[in-house]
Amino acid sequence: MKLETALQEVSARTRAAPLVIKMHPHDNVAVVVRDGGLPAGAVVEPDVVLLEHVPQGHKVALEGLAKGDPVRRYNVAIGYALQDIAAGRWVNEHLMQMPPALGLDHLPIATRQAPASDVLEGFTFQGYRNADGSVGTRNILAITTTVQCVSGVVGYAVRRIKEELLPRYPHVDDVVALTHTYGCGVAIDAPSAPIPIRTVRNISLNPNFGNELMVVSLGCEKMQPARLLPPGSIPLANADGPDVVVLQDESHVGFMSMIEDIMATAERHLVRLNARRREACPASALVVGMQCGGSDAFSGITANPALGYAADLLVRAGATVMFSENTEVRDGVDQLTSRASTPEVAEAIIREMAWYDAYLQAGSVDRSANTTPGNKKGGLSNIVEKAMGSIVKSGSSKIVGVLSPGERLRDKGIDGGLVFAATPASDFICGTLQLAAGMNLHIFTTGRGTPYGLAECPVIKVATRSELARRWHDLMDVNAGRIADGELDIEQLGWEIFQLMLDVASGRKTWAEQWKLANALTLFNPAPVT
Amino acid sequence: MKLETALQEVSARTRAAPLVIKMHPHDNVAVVVRDGGLPAGAVVEPDVVLLEHVPQGHKVALEGLAKGDPVRRYNVAIGYALQDIAAGRWVNEHLMQMPPALGLDHLPIATRQAPASDVLEGFTFQGYRNADGSVGTRNILAITTTVQCVSGVVGYAVRRIKEELLPRYPHVDDVVALTHTYGCGVAIDAPSAPIPIRTVRNISLNPNFGNELMVVSLGCEKMQPARLLPPGSIPLANADGPDVVVLQDESHVGFMSMIEDIMATAERHLVRLNARRREACPASALVVGMQCGGSDAFSGITANPALGYAADLLVRAGATVMFSENTEVRDGVDQLTSRASTPEVAEAIIREMAWYDAYLQAGSVDRSANTTPGNKKGGLSNIVEKAMGSIVKSGSSKIVGVLSPGERLRDKGIDGGLVFAATPASDFICGTLQLAAGMNLHIFTTGRGTPYGLAECPVIKVATRSELARRWHDLMDVNAGRIADGELDIEQLGWEIFQLMLDVASGRKTWAEQWKLANALTLFNPAPVT
Repeated sequence: MKLETALQEVSARTRAAPLVIKMHPHDNVAVVVRDGGLPAGAVVEPDVVLLEHVPQGHKVALEGLAKGDPVRRYNVAIGYALQDIAAGRWVNEHLMQMPPALGLDHLPIATRQAPASDVLEGFTFQGYRNADGSVGTRNILAITTTVQCVSGVVGYAVRRIKEELLPRYPHVDDVVALTHTYGCGVAIDAPSAPIPIRTVRNISLNPNFGNELMVVSLGCEKMQPARLLPPGSIPLANADGPDVVVLQDESHVGFMSMIEDIMATAERHLVRLNARRREACPASALVVGMQCGGSDAFSGITANPALGYAADLLVRAGATVMFSENTEVRDGVDQLTSRASTPEVAEAIIREMAWYDAYLQAGSVDRSANTTPGNKKGGLSNIVEKAMGSIVKSGSSKIVGVLSPGERLRDKGIDGGLVFAATPASDFICGTLQLAAGMNLHIFTTGRGTPYGLAECPVIKVATRSELARRWHDLMDVNAGRIADGELDIEQLGWEIFQLMLDVASGRKTWAEQWKLANALTLFNPAPVT
Repeated sequence: MKLETALQEVSARTRAAPLVIKMHPHDNVAVVVRDGGLPAGAVVEPDVVLLEHVPQGHKVALEGLAKGDPVRRYNVAIGYALQDIAAGRWVNEHLMQMPPALGLDHLPIATRQAPASDVLEGFTFQGYRNADGSVGTRNILAITTTVQCVSGVVGYAVRRIKEELLPRYPHVDDVVALTHTYGCGVAIDAPSAPIPIRTVRNISLNPNFGNELMVVSLGCEKMQPARLLPPGSIPLANADGPDVVVLQDESHVGFMSMIEDIMATAERHLVRLNARRREACPASALVVGMQCGGSDAFSGITANPALGYAADLLVRAGATVMFSENTEVRDGVDQLTSRASTPEVAEAIIREMAWYDAYLQAGSVDRSANTTPGNKKGGLSNIVEKAMGSIVKSGSSKIVGVLSPGERLRDKGIDGGLVFAATPASDFICGTLQLAAGMNLHIFTTGRGTPYGLAECPVIKVATRSELARRWHDLMDVNAGRIADGELDIEQLGWEIFQLMLDVASGRKTWAEQWKLANALTLFNPAPVT
């Protein structure tokens, strides 16, 4: 698929507030736009009349298909007709056979030219500069934990820090306990154990925490502080080593001595964090993680194409932009490898796909385990169709780097450009891994609606449909449904999202932040528990 | 090992506050009891003088061992000498080779006679009787969630319920959101997916929640409410079906409409829960989950033997008692199969062990992935030694039933007796699975110390050493170190624990409850995430 073609196609059509949207001239299905769907008898193209009611977001056949014919959307065969399908019929998952997964052996490697586009200069946001050169969009004290055992105690301490200390440090935005379910009762020497370990480590080094590292450990856990944060991984602000409170230390007599120790340690960091101020930083300091969840057929028509346009703007401004979700790119891996900037990047993409194929197979499933009841209700028949709409949000830039789960951009020397951060598609695992990569701004598109949020990083939420944006008016930050309504085009919304990103990075609160809606960190641990 | 022999042995020795403890007459090592360990030159037996300092909890050779000789503790070969070891030397993990795992093919099946012991009658506690015949030890409103997406919203609602509603319903102990990381972004049709699904379902039916079931769902998630709670699984109190709040429902306009809907639904249940009162219930209504975590060499000398004695008392009183932790019984599987009440029970034990062996092997590890730095520091050289000390807490009763992870005792028709609930040893996963089984009282022994707690069920914590009990005086509920100190014997502490269980079941608060220390539910999901 040529994205530019699709964009133009959509733009041209959406200005007229169409009944249906066709993503590419070669497509033989189109998606119903109208709230409530369209009734039998509706004329959707000059020579196509609906033969039955088709719900919003679902596909209608624009021409007659014979059994075995490809069903084309995004100029990709998203399935094969299981029976003859007349023009005007509702094409849903029951009428389509899913194509097999693309092989990983003969993919196009770094064949695609990058689109010609100017460098964007002069765009800035107000951020917190860190000693290591990274920039935070929030000024947060994070308390790293080595094991779930300490989470109750840390939770108690954080409540008291918020009540008793934080009011005295008004330039600090929040205090967040980085709790998780790893650290003990796990196979910590298993081959894939480095994934969760480096994830916790790298989250603790996220730019939004100002390089101020403090750790609460139990003492007897498998993930010892020195294993979590080996020499060399400690930031400059901890010149004397990491601040570690060990609950089992003999110095702790009684519960309150633990709480007081954590609070006193926290206050040392609060003093330093409170002295910081926002200052003008180039847009190139943004590290944006993109995700979609609760997707519908509009995800790939409105929100994700606009996000793709914004991603291109970010890349042109020198920022780093991550897209992820292995199962949602697997069926478009050829698009990714062809857009790789070098053969090495393409090989890394293939390696991640192969690893994930094997991981799923070990659990006796495959990529089709992705797609939810809500996806299908929203018109996405299978993972191929979902993937095509998901990849669109990566825009059209070359892919300059690949991260394995839990890896950190800075450790790979990546600073700027479009990056494929290989993660599961689970919203929470993907968000957690993007935090570990170094994300300082998160953007999330949704068609069905989710109140997703993170305590560690602002999350901008984009609704794919106006009906959702209206109903969830105080949860959705952007209404991409205006594209389907013909109110504005993809380029316009792309610029709007780009500008909103700079505003939110500068301190403007998202709806999730206003309500303090935050989901728990969720580690990706492919290794056994014990 | 004959437990009775060990108990007598320990009892006889502990009354004299010994320097070392030998668990069985045939053992060739003993464990140092004294705080701070014992110095070179200390005389620990008439003809055994320490050749070096041996830390507390660690083993001293009572006789000379030749390379290859078994190191015997609990009358079991916990390892084989890697070199000649002189009497009086410190025997640690560096001097021992771990034995291979027991084969699962030729185990003794239901060979052991149950110990002769009278039925205990007349013991009662003050509990909350449920319509389904179960009894709660707490009166809690639980809010079940189908997916992590809703947890931020549910957390917001729970804070408001606690502030605005709970004060008007003083007979309700607490409101708890049953949040977790499952529900979407998971391979929900994978062969092992039923484990996490039934775990969430069965926790929502825990006796401490009074059969009052309410659910918050997003709408588009994979674990749909009807999949989580199919017809037939809904308790009587929900005669009109489960109360499900679906955030994506069209009736919800704005965030506050979601909050108000959850609060109104919660209040209907609070009214009914608030009308309940504690009443005398037989001890047979107790469903006790036993666990140990942060273990040391004293776990198997003081706390776990006393807990084993209490477990026997509970069984004699008709209660149901669960022990768990696959990797901590694997090396004593022969003890379990021989104590099975029927060949079917023994076969179920073997099946669970084989399944877990395969699960670990799929991740390229084995049972030796259990044991932590803290275990080793505390004197436990390997998983064999740890397992022997862990199994002791099951007492001497016959094993009358086996649960697979996430299964519910009532669904298996089990009411009374000792049950092996197969779970990973991870404290949080084990506790979560025991909650799903129907646990209404939890008891947890620890040598290194952990502030573990659950919001769903009281957790009695038992320290294995007096030094820990003194230092963590407001976190440990019982000091089993008094056994090693010679202050009381195992039987006395067993009775004390039994009585404390009845008190806590009747409403007496544990330390974890007083501080409101609670760890997150942690599901066992052996299937892939997507």
